[in-house]
Amino acid sequence: MKRKIILDCDPGHDDAVALMMAGIHPSIDLLGVTIVSGNQTLEKNLTNALNICQYLNIDVPVYAGSTRPLVKKPVYAEFIHGKSGLDGPTFDPLVKKPEEKFAPVYIAETLMNSEEKITLVPTGPLTNIALAMRLEPKIVDKIEEIVLMGGSVDSGNITPAAEFNIWVDAEAARIVFESGVKVVMCGLNVTRKLRCFQEIIDRMDKIGNKASTLFKEMMEFYNQTQLSSFGWVGGPLHDPLTIAYLIDNSVLKLNHCHVDVDNNNSVSYGRTNCDFPGIQGLEPTAYVAEDVDIEKFWNIIEECLKLYS
Amino acid sequence: MKRKIILDCDPGHDDAVALMMAGIHPSIDLLGVTIVSGNQTLEKNLTNALNICQYLNIDVPVYAGSTRPLVKKPVYAEFIHGKSGLDGPTFDPLVKKPEEKFAPVYIAETLMNSEEKITLVPTGPLTNIALAMRLEPKIVDKIEEIVLMGGSVDSGNITPAAEFNIWVDAEAARIVFESGVKVVMCGLNVTRKLRCFQEIIDRMDKIGNKASTLFKEMMEFYNQTQLSSFGWVGGPLHDPLTIAYLIDNSVLKLNHCHVDVDNNNSVSYGRTNCDFPGIQGLEPTAYVAEDVDIEKFWNIIEECLKLYS
Amino acid sequence: MKRKIILDCDPGHDDAVALMMAGIHPSIDLLGVTIVSGNQTLEKNLTNALNICQYLNIDVPVYAGSTRPLVKKPVYAEFIHGKSGLDGPTFDPLVKKPEEKFAPVYIAETLMNSEEKITLVPTGPLTNIALAMRLEPKIVDKIEEIVLMGGSVDSGNITPAAEFNIWVDAEAARIVFESGVKVVMCGLNVTRKLRCFQEIIDRMDKIGNKASTLFKEMMEFYNQTQLSSFGWVGGPLHDPLTIAYLIDNSVLKLNHCHVDVDNNNSVSYGRTNCDFPGIQGLEPTAYVAEDVDIEKFWNIIEECLKLYS
Amino acid sequence: MKRKIILDCDPGHDDAVALMMAGIHPSIDLLGVTIVSGNQTLEKNLTNALNICQYLNIDVPVYAGSTRPLVKKPVYAEFIHGKSGLDGPTFDPLVKKPEEKFAPVYIAETLMNSEEKITLVPTGPLTNIALAMRLEPKIVDKIEEIVLMGGSVDSGNITPAAEFNIWVDAEAARIVFESGVKVVMCGLNVTRKLRCFQEIIDRMDKIGNKASTLFKEMMEFYNQTQLSSFGWVGGPLHDPLTIAYLIDNSVLKLNHCHVDVDNNNSVSYGRTNCDFPGIQGLEPTAYVAEDVDIEKFWNIIEECLKLYS
Repeated sequence: MKRKIILDCDPGHDDAVALMMAGIHPSIDLLGVTIVSGNQTLEKNLTNALNICQYLNIDVPVYAGSTRPLVKKPVYAEFIHGKSGLDGPTFDPLVKKPEEKFAPVYIAETLMNSEEKITLVPTGPLTNIALAMRLEPKIVDKIEEIVLMGGSVDSGNITPAAEFNIWVDAEAARIVFESGVKVVMCGLNVTRKLRCFQEIIDRMDKIGNKASTLFKEMMEFYNQTQLSSFGWVGGPLHDPLTIAYLIDNSVLKLNHCHVDVDNNNSVSYGRTNCDFPGIQGLEPTAYVAEDVDIEKFWNIIEECLKLYS
Repeated sequence: MKRKIILDCDPGHDDAVALMMAGIHPSIDLLGVTIVSGNQTLEKNLTNALNICQYLNIDVPVYAGSTRPLVKKPVYAEFIHGKSGLDGPTFDPLVKKPEEKFAPVYIAETLMNSEEKITLVPTGPLTNIALAMRLEPKIVDKIEEIVLMGGSVDSGNITPAAEFNIWVDAEAARIVFESGVKVVMCGLNVTRKLRCFQEIIDRMDKIGNKASTLFKEMMEFYNQTQLSSFGWVGGPLHDPLTIAYLIDNSVLKLNHCHVDVDNNNSVSYGRTNCDFPGIQGLEPTAYVAEDVDIEKFWNIIEECLKLYS
Repeated sequence: MKRKIILDCDPGHDDAVALMMAGIHPSIDLLGVTIVSGNQTLEKNLTNALNICQYLNIDVPVYAGSTRPLVKKPVYAEFIHGKSGLDGPTFDPLVKKPEEKFAPVYIAETLMNSEEKITLVPTGPLTNIALAMRLEPKIVDKIEEIVLMGGSVDSGNITPAAEFNIWVDAEAARIVFESGVKVVMCGLNVTRKLRCFQEIIDRMDKIGNKASTLFKEMMEFYNQTQLSSFGWVGGPLHDPLTIAYLIDNSVLKLNHCHVDVDNNNSVSYGRTNCDFPGIQGLEPTAYVAEDVDIEKFWNIIEECLKLYS
Repeated sequence: MKRKIILDCDPGHDDAVALMMAGIHPSIDLLGVTIVSGNQTLEKNLTNALNICQYLNIDVPVYAGSTRPLVKKPVYAEFIHGKSGLDGPTFDPLVKKPEEKFAPVYIAETLMNSEEKITLVPTGPLTNIALAMRLEPKIVDKIEEIVLMGGSVDSGNITPAAEFNIWVDAEAARIVFESGVKVVMCGLNVTRKLRCFQEIIDRMDKIGNKASTLFKEMMEFYNQTQLSSFGWVGGPLHDPLTIAYLIDNSVLKLNHCHVDVDNNNSVSYGRTNCDFPGIQGLEPTAYVAEDVDIEKFWNIIEECLKLYS
């Protein structure tokens, strides 16, 4: 049976790969794509998502969500994703249109109207999910799980303490982590191991379809900014790990532990404090990725790209 | 011309008086009443608002809003307002029904569909207003002003730093104070001067109508808990100052200054830091009540109560 | 019997008046004066203290203390006290020398070597007292009480949340307030009532001795900066209230309550959260001035100034 | 030429090994040992240090320092180091006496009286060093460098955010990191790699002298509590890395970067935010260990133990 999911994202190069995977894999029923402010402005992220869907014929409704974080001012990651938020590839003129409904409303209504539980997959700031939970508190009982990319067990990327998605909206992150819903957190501590070296790009390029071409064009740009910003040769491909986990849970080793999101206006704003050894004796609140099977991950990526004609 | 307002409240004894005033005064066009979690649970506050409207024949739609603050866990003021949230008076069986729509949705739609600007009057935690702003960011241009009861220039009541309404949801308060909308803040520093001594109760009681009876029954209970909790003889009547200000602006002396809401998880959580002398050189962001004309205030209360038949 | 005290100060115009009082009143045995960084640099404050002692023949050893706060960077109040830290009066060339010993060492040794308990009177940041407590933890048992000027029950002066002395070194303040020693806090909420109007200056000027002349010269400068900085006509004379209280306890109404000093790096840094109504149910940790007898205060000032020949 | 050092510690099993190394290696001139509250009470840590010196005939003066952190209440690590703070070995009756002088005074005086610069090596909370800096600010120009064990680039041990030494006294840590002195930080991110597996214990045991026996007895206890507390098989030997670095700098790969110590009273209290990629653009303030040569480290340990007769 297919797993019903809503992908909440801010594409973004790595979000784009997650969308490519979710849009094609037979084990996933992608109900909708919701867009949030994050890597770039809402408008740019929306355009990027529509472009990808149009280019790859992914037939899914796309909804615009929050233009900004819950409390803090918006901040973008142009230094990584470029002016468009998805610099690198070029697309045909955009024909595909977004839906009218506000993304958090769509999320809340879809959950409430569904007989089955639905999995939420946020790969950007958690603003839309948090807003949906406050619009309709009962949705927490309709969410199968939340498999998110965000946070870190060790160090951050946008600050020494915090990973970008959580740091952009730590208030939303607290809402999600304290919601009582099962949360699977794919943090930097594992996604940093998913380095997209040139050999990976070459391997995917050999597939020789529209998807692999897009992958190549995106990753070549992404690797340039990862190098200039962080000194990485081969940037880490964060967001697709969420979809890879849905396709094959064994790609991750999880640790059930307590997570505290720091939302003080301080140098550690946005840090996800994950009590791995359980020394604080607090009750577990999330399943935090502790390790990843790197080879398996890239195999899943390749499997997905090959599904495109 | 009447001023169009939406009253967002959590009745609560002093909210109830504000509702009584807004529901009858000829200078005010009360479009709707929205309820928020605060003095008691959402459900109890809703019941109390419906009871007052039914008892006084106030014909206004009432909407249920958020059951909890944006980020923090809900906390109630049962020690002040009793188990029902409006202990003291008893009411006939409740016939009046709330509307179906979620209060923040009602607020956002009403503003967007209105040609004129509308004034928001929050007398509880600011959760509903903040949610409406995130549901539809464009409403900030449709709000005439926000005249709120909350915060303090000097000390708090629920903690030494914070006033109850702001402390319950300081994240929502930051959203409102940083929204760019004109905010008039009626804080404890002035509302504490509005002591409802027995002579005030007696004066209102002499009016001899349904409204004055309700006022008397509510205030007699309220004064008991104010005495036992804070040692006040004659509890301060906070919330009605917002409506009194709408009826007669001259009741308040305002100070245009910068306000910072502390939402750190610390001993000063929920404090409204108002830069009266402007020593910090930050730009003014709110009109903060600095003084109140006490006599004028009680005259306005009396005027309103007398309007009921 | 005389009360033995050490005056720890950063003169500063109002500190200077406190020193004038402590140096002459027959009920006080001024053992030593210790200087701290605060209103101006340590060096300037030291010079000012020596100048006052020399000018008025106050025969007391003066010790230089900390050049900076415990953790934070030093900040000065030049906008109030001028470039010298005591602008206004001019003095003869300085002959009086400071002692060699570091003030916190002097404080610790004096307490440990004394058979009687000694009262500490800090009228600046609490750095020296805190350091003495960490140099020799046993001194807490030898301190009669700490009667300090600092903090506020309501609003601050250097920020909306904080009073200058506490804000300069909130870490030191936490050490003092959590030391277990009896602390009497004279905060802005009472000292702001001690407005040095021109009529007060004139009244003191009539005394017609060296002390009254100095008082007049200092206060005329002080009132100028109080006016330009805060809009006060007649600046509040904060620090002398400590000495006035030692001379006549009845000048203050005290409230035994819990005090939390906020030392988070936030907008409320340095706030003294005083739980007057005891609503938090925490144990009392300080005697906080709630009200002051203004007339009695000025009488004590006059009494002290008259004691100079 | 020998490098003059003062070892400031709270033995503690791993501190004890650092002391054994510093007390014997020909490249190090151990001027004094200063003790601080940390792993256990000051008194217990002092006794442990004296016992080790007496047992191994290390002829060095030992000074008692602060009984508690600068601002926060003391906390100990009995769950790791046992009731004595050095459970495992037993010692002959203690004859060696501590010096009279307070450790921070000793540190300040020794530095001021020295013609050469001196290196400070703190392996416990930084209270003594911070106090010395506030007692005599001029010492910062006399310190060669501060090579400390503390903090973490990634996750903590006493909380998810913080390493024990920094967490016990984050205020002292801020003082040290912001002092302008060259700081070399050996954090958990590298010391965690120094796992004292049974094969390491066996290898050292083969040396067959008093030092190796002590090492074995200590490590066997330590490995039990590391296992029960953190699930480590082979506990990490944190503190000796500081001395190993002094003996052979090449054991560490350092990263010159900005470090912010979080001293907010929050879930991230005590975190050392190290800006490795320099993305924040702040000026470098410390040399933070990024990697360690594990084999070289154990060789240095072995070399030191063998030096004992």
